[in-house]
Amino acid sequence: MPAMPFDTVLIANRGEIALRILHACRLLGLKAVCVYSDADRDAPYLPLADASVCIGPAAPSASYLNIEAILMAADVTGAQAVHPGYGFLSESAAFADAVNDSGRIFIGPSGDCIRTMGDKVAAKRAMMKADVPCVPGPDNELPDDMDEVDRIASQIGYPVIIKAAGGGGGRGMRIVQTPGELRSAVMIAREEASRFFASPAIYMEKFLERPRHVEVQVLCDNHGNVVWLGDRDCSIQRRHQKIIEEAPAPGIDRSKIADLGARCAAACQQIGYSGAGTFEFLYENGSFYFIEMNTRLQVEHPVTEMVTGVDIVAEQLRIALDQKLSVRQEQVVTTGHSVECRINAEDAFTFMPVPGKISALTLPGGPGIRIDTHLQQGYRIPATYDSLIAKVITHGRSREEAIDRMRGALRQFRIEGLSCNAALHAELLEDKGFIAGGVDVHYLERFLESRAHL
Amino acid sequence: MPAMPFDTVLIANRGEIALRILHACRLLGLKAVCVYSDADRDAPYLPLADASVCIGPAAPSASYLNIEAILMAADVTGAQAVHPGYGFLSESAAFADAVNDSGRIFIGPSGDCIRTMGDKVAAKRAMMKADVPCVPGPDNELPDDMDEVDRIASQIGYPVIIKAAGGGGGRGMRIVQTPGELRSAVMIAREEASRFFASPAIYMEKFLERPRHVEVQVLCDNHGNVVWLGDRDCSIQRRHQKIIEEAPAPGIDRSKIADLGARCAAACQQIGYSGAGTFEFLYENGSFYFIEMNTRLQVEHPVTEMVTGVDIVAEQLRIALDQKLSVRQEQVVTTGHSVECRINAEDAFTFMPVPGKISALTLPGGPGIRIDTHLQQGYRIPATYDSLIAKVITHGRSREEAIDRMRGALRQFRIEGLSCNAALHAELLEDKGFIAGGVDVHYLERFLESRAHL
Repeated sequence: MPAMPFDTVLIANRGEIALRILHACRLLGLKAVCVYSDADRDAPYLPLADASVCIGPAAPSASYLNIEAILMAADVTGAQAVHPGYGFLSESAAFADAVNDSGRIFIGPSGDCIRTMGDKVAAKRAMMKADVPCVPGPDNELPDDMDEVDRIASQIGYPVIIKAAGGGGGRGMRIVQTPGELRSAVMIAREEASRFFASPAIYMEKFLERPRHVEVQVLCDNHGNVVWLGDRDCSIQRRHQKIIEEAPAPGIDRSKIADLGARCAAACQQIGYSGAGTFEFLYENGSFYFIEMNTRLQVEHPVTEMVTGVDIVAEQLRIALDQKLSVRQEQVVTTGHSVECRINAEDAFTFMPVPGKISALTLPGGPGIRIDTHLQQGYRIPATYDSLIAKVITHGRSREEAIDRMRGALRQFRIEGLSCNAALHAELLEDKGFIAGGVDVHYLERFLESRAHL
Repeated sequence: MPAMPFDTVLIANRGEIALRILHACRLLGLKAVCVYSDADRDAPYLPLADASVCIGPAAPSASYLNIEAILMAADVTGAQAVHPGYGFLSESAAFADAVNDSGRIFIGPSGDCIRTMGDKVAAKRAMMKADVPCVPGPDNELPDDMDEVDRIASQIGYPVIIKAAGGGGGRGMRIVQTPGELRSAVMIAREEASRFFASPAIYMEKFLERPRHVEVQVLCDNHGNVVWLGDRDCSIQRRHQKIIEEAPAPGIDRSKIADLGARCAAACQQIGYSGAGTFEFLYENGSFYFIEMNTRLQVEHPVTEMVTGVDIVAEQLRIALDQKLSVRQEQVVTTGHSVECRINAEDAFTFMPVPGKISALTLPGGPGIRIDTHLQQGYRIPATYDSLIAKVITHGRSREEAIDRMRGALRQFRIEGLSCNAALHAELLEDKGFIAGGVDVHYLERFLESRAHL
């Protein structure tokens, strides 16, 4: 048997996902190196690693986004592979390239794949080519000719949305409800695109008013094997941040999901994908519309693990080790239902992150309960990073049972010393709309607004 | 809707199972009262209860076996139901009667059911009547007439075993390999039975040389519904103490298990059983032989929960609440495989319990891993009680995967401040015999002996 390509993994991340990756390394008998910023010096998972290296001050740009410092840490610890987790450098093509160029293995797809999927127009083009359903609209920039723009809009059908090709965060974005509003909207969008993204390039798509967010998890090894692991519904969002996720998506015809999954798997083959990835879709009136591919592990991966039994992080490591996937498509069976509630350390009313020291902590337990967290009593949560501090994940034979177990779990989840959103979750779990299932991505904001008026 | 029969449960137990029952109470929105002995004053789960009451000094006879003290605790806290857990008073018909007579609800079967199943000869008679396969041998005491005893032994077939009807612990027990040994064995057994159990009554059964221990979990509500939740293999034992359990039992024809399960369910109907229970069998050469019924929750119940998704403790509470079972027989589906390793605080060589203060504790996590424990860093384990301190339970799509996840979990399980049997588990998980599956109840003792000679 040839030697393994690596025996030591550097975990280029922090918090709950650093610990999650560490668990997977242990499962496979691999050594694990953690990196940390000055602010994370006391992170509870550091003593569990085979080595841990400080990579800089608290500011992410100086530490968790500091490619040079991370590669240096890999160098001094002999780590031959790097897992980027989610967030931070996980979708940086430059990081993937730098890791690979240093003779190490980036645990994820190639830099080129990340680059293509990171460019909205290029990604859409690739998906259309692969027969993955996309939001109606051309796969290129809008022309200058306004009559032509008019024609494109009528062809798509109103309402439409105009977006900056290089953009994000709502800038350069305009929703157009009627033909009369089109010209001025295009002008404003171009102007904002130039101003914020240094390019006037804009494109147009159909605007979906109350879509759901449904996504498909895929795994691809380097031996030509691809599987899709079912779907997730992540429609409960606040400002594009997912709060509750579940698998499978309730109330959607399973044969439609199967068709979608098969298309995603075929697209992976076509683009030469490797590793774990997620195809994100909007879903409205029985149709799916591709929005983007996340070329990395996702926060909500556990709900898929709970219903399929597949350890997605372990599969990522196996793929990087050049092994075959441990599961074939025909072996993927979905059992029951899973729900995840993201516990954020934040103010219950302003939603602002609140750091603080955990003076007491009680975690739920029992059948169908999983907690992914790095928290420990006495740990001080730093102010610098994402407010996600724990994921409470439940599994049940039915969606009803999974939700019921979540209610029971949240009744037992107790954290003292800082405020978190557990009460909001408890409220949502009693909400008729959520219980019925299949709410749209704006549901939570409407829910919060109506609550604010009480 | 009529008021619930109770809203507060007194948990008449300690350690991991007290916490497990507390979780189930929370799931159902019930209040929970814990009791504790002086030695358990600092037990980490006490602050989680709605109330906790000291019931006496450390000695079990003065606290956890003290019916009067427990009923007094129920009285002062207004608990209208009592969950006995396992061990202690859980199979005491007198306790069940006392709880019921006090106007409270005993969470378990009636005192009469416990009494019948606690008498070996009566239990066997009931099982033979219900067509549950029993160890060959008459369901009554041996006659004085030695010619008749000779005939019975030849009819059963050698080797046979002679046991005291009221006995236990090996006293009054004789294995007889050949007819020539019979007379003196009967004499000695009678003599010991008289001496130790105040009655010369003895009975005879076929002696099984290398059986496996296989058991069937049942649930019965008070509305005539019975389900059996598959089987467990608990053959890895040391001195009749189970160390590793798994579900389902490997390598046994599923149609045989289905037949056995149906017989157990029918027997429950016949004896008017209520609550959770376990039919224990020996299995040899393709046949099952009833040994006893445990009329209570068992330590190893989580492996059944992992493969069926049914929360057995929650079902116990529902039954006591006079609700119907949440699952019908045709809905019981076994998914994958589950293994449980009992972590005992004991010396690695002498197996003597070792108390001590937990100076550091790291628990494993990730998909397919469940830890049932009341341990916390800083907690001092008292010397007085059972050495079981944690149960590591894994689930996998296959037995192989469940075992692999257990290996990964044990690599991460770290407890400092006292010694435990985690290393023995790690060794067993690499042992060819265990990995192949289907070893007999003496396997672990042979394993330990062969290791002792290295």
